[in-house]
Amino acid sequence: MNHTTYRTLDAAGIRDLIAGLPDIAARLGGTVEHWQVREVSDGNLNNVFIVTGHTGEVCLKQSLPHVRVDPAWKMPLDRTFFEAEWLRAVQPLAGALTTEFLHFDPVLYVLIVESLSGHTVLRSALMQGVDWPGVAPRIATFVAHTTFGTSLLARPFEDVFTARGIFCANQALTRITLDLVLDHPYRDHPRNHWEEPELTPIVLDIRSSAATLMAVENLRRRFLSQPQALLHGDLHTGSIMSTPDDTRVIDGEFALYGPIGFDCGMFIGNLVLHYFATPDHAARQATLQDIAAFWACFQEQFLILWNMNEAAPAGTLRPLAYGPAARVAQQAFIDEILIDTIGFAAVEIIRRLIGYAHTADFDAIADPQQRGACRAGALAFAYHVLEHHAEVVTIGDFLLNLGERGKTGL
Amino acid sequence: MNHTTYRTLDAAGIRDLIAGLPDIAARLGGTVEHWQVREVSDGNLNNVFIVTGHTGEVCLKQSLPHVRVDPAWKMPLDRTFFEAEWLRAVQPLAGALTTEFLHFDPVLYVLIVESLSGHTVLRSALMQGVDWPGVAPRIATFVAHTTFGTSLLARPFEDVFTARGIFCANQALTRITLDLVLDHPYRDHPRNHWEEPELTPIVLDIRSSAATLMAVENLRRRFLSQPQALLHGDLHTGSIMSTPDDTRVIDGEFALYGPIGFDCGMFIGNLVLHYFATPDHAARQATLQDIAAFWACFQEQFLILWNMNEAAPAGTLRPLAYGPAARVAQQAFIDEILIDTIGFAAVEIIRRLIGYAHTADFDAIADPQQRGACRAGALAFAYHVLEHHAEVVTIGDFLLNLGERGKTGL
Repeated sequence: MNHTTYRTLDAAGIRDLIAGLPDIAARLGGTVEHWQVREVSDGNLNNVFIVTGHTGEVCLKQSLPHVRVDPAWKMPLDRTFFEAEWLRAVQPLAGALTTEFLHFDPVLYVLIVESLSGHTVLRSALMQGVDWPGVAPRIATFVAHTTFGTSLLARPFEDVFTARGIFCANQALTRITLDLVLDHPYRDHPRNHWEEPELTPIVLDIRSSAATLMAVENLRRRFLSQPQALLHGDLHTGSIMSTPDDTRVIDGEFALYGPIGFDCGMFIGNLVLHYFATPDHAARQATLQDIAAFWACFQEQFLILWNMNEAAPAGTLRPLAYGPAARVAQQAFIDEILIDTIGFAAVEIIRRLIGYAHTADFDAIADPQQRGACRAGALAFAYHVLEHHAEVVTIGDFLLNLGERGKTGL
Repeated sequence: MNHTTYRTLDAAGIRDLIAGLPDIAARLGGTVEHWQVREVSDGNLNNVFIVTGHTGEVCLKQSLPHVRVDPAWKMPLDRTFFEAEWLRAVQPLAGALTTEFLHFDPVLYVLIVESLSGHTVLRSALMQGVDWPGVAPRIATFVAHTTFGTSLLARPFEDVFTARGIFCANQALTRITLDLVLDHPYRDHPRNHWEEPELTPIVLDIRSSAATLMAVENLRRRFLSQPQALLHGDLHTGSIMSTPDDTRVIDGEFALYGPIGFDCGMFIGNLVLHYFATPDHAARQATLQDIAAFWACFQEQFLILWNMNEAAPAGTLRPLAYGPAARVAQQAFIDEILIDTIGFAAVEIIRRLIGYAHTADFDAIADPQQRGACRAGALAFAYHVLEHHAEVVTIGDFLLNLGERGKTGL
C-alpha cells in the first residue's frame, strides 16, 4: 500500500514538509513553530505560499488536481514537475534571471524556489507607471541564452531529443495554450468574453478574414511542429518579477520545445497591451523603446552565442560552412524567429482582449469609453498585423504600425 | 536475480522461443523439430532468420549489441523495439504495404513478422532489369498514408507528441543517419571511401562549395527539427520487397519523427542511383517515369487525405480557413516537402557513392571505366542539385537536370 499519496497542503502541512528538508529549514532559520506561511496564489492554476523564517524565506508552489480559479476544470498534477524540469534546464544558462531551484517533491507536486519578496510583478509595476529600461534587455538576454542553449545549435542532438521527449509529455498545459491562445478566440466559444461593444465588429472582421485565419493556422502549426528550443511557454508580463535592477522570469510550467518566436511574441504582445493601456505619451514612447530594445538585444546576443559556437562544442554538429554564406543563413534563421514573434505577439494581444484570460492592464483606465477605445485600438492593431502578416516582417514595420494605430484612444 | 536477460539466438534458441508462442507455432504448423531455421541476414545491423514449418513461414529479426558487419562498432539493442513501434503505428494506415506484425520480445529484442519469401528486394529486382510500374505509386501511397496519418493534420497533438516522445529515444540510429548521410561525406572521415579517381575532383568541389555545404547544413537542421510525421527513416530500394503486383516496405528500425521529404528523398535518391547504373536507355526512361509517378501520386494522395480531413476528426485541430486561401497554404506545404525531397535525394546519392555504405546498383557494370563514368555522373548530378538547390524546386526541374546529366556514361 502506498502511504505517500498526493494531498493538498495547508499551512501546517507545509511546515511539516519543510521540517523534513534540512537544507531549506536551515535557510529559513529558527524553529518550525515560528515559520510563517502566507498564501499568495494569484495565478489561475496553482496554490502558492511564501514561508518566512528568522533568517530567510522560500516560495512554495503546489499543483492542484484542477484549475485553481475553476475547480470544475480538472487538470493533471504534473505541471510543477515540468516547471521543475524547466528550471533545472535553464538555470545553467541564465540562472541569475530566474529564481533559484531548491526542491521538488514528486509525490506532492510541490516545487520550492527562492522567494522574491522585494520584487514586483512586471505587469503591476508597469501599471504603476515605472520606467525600468533594463527589464526588456534582461528578458532578451534570458530568452537568447535559454533558447540558444537548449537548441541544436548548442547541444548534441541526443541531449535535445531527450529533453524534447520529456516536454512532449507536458500536454495538459500545451493544450491550454493551443485552445485559449490559438483556437477559441477565432470562433464562437463559451470561454470567450469581452465587455465593450466596439470590439465586436473587429472580432467579426477577424473571424471572417481568410488571410487572418490562415496566418493563425500557420502559427498554430508552427507552435506544435518547430521544436527549436525549450520555451518558457507563457512569457507575459505577469510571469516576470522585477526591481529596477534585478529581473526574474518565473512560472515555467507551460514549458515546451517550440518556436523561439513564441516566447519573444508573448513578451512583446504583453508590452503592446501595456502600450495601448497607458494614456501617457512618454510611457508609450518608453514602451516602443522597450520593444525595440528587446528585439535588438535578443538578436545580438543570439548571434554572439551562435558565432562563439563555431568553435563546435563536443558532440554538437560541426558547422559545415563559415563565412558569408553562413552569415546569410544565420540572418534567415533570425528573420524567421522575428516573423514568428510578430505573429505570436498578435495572437497573444487578441486572446487577452476577447479570449478566456484577460489581463489587468486596461483596468486602470477609469473612463469606460476611453477603456473601450484603447482595447479596440489594441485589437485592431493585432488584426492588422495578422491580416498583413506577409508585409509586417521587420521590427521597424511592427513599431511603425504600432505608432500609427496607437493614436487611437489617446 | 534476473534470469530473462538478452542472449543472441541460434537456430535452436529460435525454435525454443517460437515453441513458447502458440499463435506463431500454429501459423508454422507441424512440430518444433521439423521447423527449418535459415539465416538470411544481409543488412548491416541485425541477424535475420526465416523459420519454415509445414503450413507457414515467419521472419525473425534480432538486434545484436553491435553492428552485424562490424562487431567493434557497439550499438544499443533497442532498434528492434523501434521497428516494432513503427510497424504498430503504420499498420493501421498502410498495412497492406508492409509486413504483418506478429510478435516483439522486449528482452531478447526479437521482432517476428510475416515472411515474404515470394518477394524480391527492389534493388536486386531493378538490377535484374525488371520494369514494375506499380512499385513507385505503391511506395507513394505508403509514404502519403503513413506520414499524413501520423501528423498533426490527422491526429490530436497529444497523440503526435506522445509518439514523438517515443521516437526521440531512437538516438543510436538517428545518429547513424546524421553522421553517415549528413556529415561524414562532406569532410575527411575514415569511413568514407570510393574506388574511382574520377570521383575525387567532384568530391573536392562539393567540399569547397559554400552553397552546397550550406544546403547540406540546412537539410541536417531540418532532419532534426521538422518533426512533421513518423518517417520510415531509411526508405532505400533495399528496404522494399516486391513482386510485380505486391510491394512491401520493411526494416523500419530507423523510424523517427522528421520532415516528410526525407522519406521521399531517400526513395527518389535510390531510383536516381539505379538510373545512373542502368546502361539501357529504355530502363532509364522507365526510371524517370517512376520518379515522376512517385511524386505525382504522393502529392495527389496526401492532398486527398488532407481535404477529406477538413471534416475534422475528434480532437484534431479544426482548420480555421477553407477555400482558396487554404488551397494556397496546402500547396505551400507540399512544395516545401518537395524542396526537402530534392535535397535529401541528393545527399542520399552522395553518401552512397563516397560515404560508408554504398549500394550494389553499379556493381553490375563490368567495364571499370564505364562504371566510373556512371558513378561520376550520379555524383555530379547530386552536386549540381545541391549547388543549385534554390533553383531546382519542381519535379520537372529535377527530371530535366537528371535527363541532361544522364547522358554521361551511356
